Amino acid sequence: MASSRNHTISFLSDYGTKDEFVGVVKSVIHSLAPESNVIDISHEIKAHDIRAGGLALARAAQYLDLGVVLAVVDPGVGGTRKGVAIEVNGGDYVFVGPDNGLLPPAVAMLGESTRAVELNNLQFHLPALSSTFAGRDIFAPVAAHLTLGIPLDELGNLIPVHSLQPGLLPVGGVNAEVASAEVLWEDRFGNLQLNLSPEDIQSFGETYMLRFGETSRRVTKVETFESIPSSEIGIIVDSCGLLSISMYGRSAAEELRLHEGQQIELRPLEEEHKNVTPVTLRRER
Amino acid sequence: MASSRNHTISFLSDYGTKDEFVGVVKSVIHSLAPESNVIDISHEIKAHDIRAGGLALARAAQYLDLGVVLAVVDPGVGGTRKGVAIEVNGGDYVFVGPDNGLLPPAVAMLGESTRAVELNNLQFHLPALSSTFAGRDIFAPVAAHLTLGIPLDELGNLIPVHSLQPGLLPVGGVNAEVASAEVLWEDRFGNLQLNLSPEDIQSFGETYMLRFGETSRRVTKVETFESIPSSEIGIIVDSCGLLSISMYGRSAAEELRLHEGQQIELRPLEEEHKNVTPVTLRRER
Amino acid sequence: MASSRNHTISFLSDYGTKDEFVGVVKSVIHSLAPESNVIDISHEIKAHDIRAGGLALARAAQYLDLGVVLAVVDPGVGGTRKGVAIEVNGGDYVFVGPDNGLLPPAVAMLGESTRAVELNNLQFHLPALSSTFAGRDIFAPVAAHLTLGIPLDELGNLIPVHSLQPGLLPVGGVNAEVASAEVLWEDRFGNLQLNLSPEDIQSFGETYMLRFGETSRRVTKVETFESIPSSEIGIIVDSCGLLSISMYGRSAAEELRLHEGQQIELRPLEEEHKNVTPVTLRRER
Repeated sequence: MASSRNHTISFLSDYGTKDEFVGVVKSVIHSLAPESNVIDISHEIKAHDIRAGGLALARAAQYLDLGVVLAVVDPGVGGTRKGVAIEVNGGDYVFVGPDNGLLPPAVAMLGESTRAVELNNLQFHLPALSSTFAGRDIFAPVAAHLTLGIPLDELGNLIPVHSLQPGLLPVGGVNAEVASAEVLWEDRFGNLQLNLSPEDIQSFGETYMLRFGETSRRVTKVETFESIPSSEIGIIVDSCGLLSISMYGRSAAEELRLHEGQQIELRPLEEEHKNVTPVTLRRER
Repeated sequence: MASSRNHTISFLSDYGTKDEFVGVVKSVIHSLAPESNVIDISHEIKAHDIRAGGLALARAAQYLDLGVVLAVVDPGVGGTRKGVAIEVNGGDYVFVGPDNGLLPPAVAMLGESTRAVELNNLQFHLPALSSTFAGRDIFAPVAAHLTLGIPLDELGNLIPVHSLQPGLLPVGGVNAEVASAEVLWEDRFGNLQLNLSPEDIQSFGETYMLRFGETSRRVTKVETFESIPSSEIGIIVDSCGLLSISMYGRSAAEELRLHEGQQIELRPLEEEHKNVTPVTLRRER
Repeated sequence: MASSRNHTISFLSDYGTKDEFVGVVKSVIHSLAPESNVIDISHEIKAHDIRAGGLALARAAQYLDLGVVLAVVDPGVGGTRKGVAIEVNGGDYVFVGPDNGLLPPAVAMLGESTRAVELNNLQFHLPALSSTFAGRDIFAPVAAHLTLGIPLDELGNLIPVHSLQPGLLPVGGVNAEVASAEVLWEDRFGNLQLNLSPEDIQSFGETYMLRFGETSRRVTKVETFESIPSSEIGIIVDSCGLLSISMYGRSAAEELRLHEGQQIELRPLEEEHKNVTPVTLRRER
């Protein structure tokens, strides 16, 4: 198996692109494994935001090429957190990174962790000038060696899979009258992904009241961005199969001043609201 | 021809790099076509700005490697606009993306559209969770299959080339006394590209009056940035062969508060202006 | 030697990623040398900041894959500065870029310049529409040809290595009581690299007074970010082996309002300061 391992290394980090961190990691990988092929997933994860990195990797997971997945969002670099490699489904993927909850959401999307090692075999590390850049000194050379066919268990001591730090993700709450959710992700276009699936609000009909803080807004379920009327808010099934609060050609996040990590509620729109017309005088008479 | 098609996929989008969109598209491509080679042109096109994306692709066009050109700026994703593949010059290039005016400016730089298909053969798409990410579900797998040698006309129905949405670009107006133009592009360095060529103002001499809004500034034609005197504004032939308003080592856009899409006028500097020296007392005597 | 040259081109610039500059350079390289492999080091060097570009390249240098190093921060493009290729250590690396002080710091990290040429053989340039994009028209095709095995001295006239523009880097000053230094680099995480090595302050103990402008802050030497107490400032050996002012999980640059290029002083903390406890009543009695 090792010798037939795919040469792809999918790489996600919070290194940003303003500094040379990403380039140095790739240089190390390419020097050690010239046939490897690094695919950047994103390097603009917010600095030290393990949750955001874990979610981005999980969203990408089912599309990742077979091979090594290198992920580094690592505020505790050099400290007590372990560096690990996690084998998924007997070897389809090997995830390499810090054991701080970053990797498990994506691993769970792909299947199950079958083995894990702590990366403590220094033979596969670079000599380090400091404790501050494990991406360069530990994770990059380990990822490179994996593509060269080095067996997982040579990289360090096997550790129980259940001893790995779990990734903690918020779970939405739904009952017959209200769906409580969190904004998991605000994308570049201002779409706001919720931790709700279409099934969660199936009994709510097609039109809802969105509430958070002082704000209440009527929102409608739509199939495409284009079918959201101008200046209105739609609820759309997004590219992960989750519900997203969106506008057409504009940023729902900016319009609503609603952002990653905030809590919202969706309720079925009561009959009385459906009939509300904002400016009506003596309509009832 | 198909079997000898180049493996390069030049890729431009408005996906940004903060999210994992670009990485996912590349992962899909690489999974389907491991020998393909993706070259990123830019992914920082302003969100939904079809015109800016079309211009960037057109500026890059004549330098693109032969092969597939994948371009996605697609506010109407999932809606009524078609997904298309456009063959250029009998197969030197195949452009893949939305039929919304994004692709034609670059196609026109390279030659002519010889065939086009609507991408409606689902056999070459990924099963989609939603209508919101055609880059991943339609355009990426189509681009990958093109590099594998799948013939264009298997990707969907042939459609008349003249039925494609045109790209609408502003045309400058020039007469003997004034050149009216638009800022097509403000680059990272603050250079302001105009839709004017050197020939357009050949009869105007070497020094001009630049006017927009309340601003009037004397500008001089130069050959190099270095020859623009400090704090002055130059007109230089830029890397596309068009005229650009520039400063040396500074941003002309910031200095002038002039930006993409704004209208300007250039006039030959009249004799009286040439002799103006801002602070001169009794010079004429 | 030429025929066995590595196919890697490590590429650093101030082109940014909002425009298509980087994509065009890569397209030119790939069209001319399809087997070449471009590794992006960074393209977000501040526009025209030769010093910052030189420092980033020097920090990356010892990790760069053997081959060509293409670096472009070039405010004087098209002007009197030369374009050059510099051979390092008899051919381990060839640096290609402007002769303006950008390349020497990295060359010095790797060894010595053994030969240099001025890039004046037009046979290896693209026909240029302007003087403004040497990266595309001169440096990219030269880099591509180097990976194809074209000998250095065919690219132009040999020039004396000592005639190249030097890179000027600030040197810190240290005596028994004070270390005067400059912030060389503020990274994405807000770490502030100093031009001081651990040896420079070895005699100072483990706790220091950091001073700049009106600010005085007690700082402590640490081994890992994790061991910096919350809200306190640490001095850590960074990934280049230099001292860095850092916080744990936060930006020291933001906390201190201290940035690239500013001057600071470190002094050993006197006994009296060590005993200061901010809020103590009658402790001495």
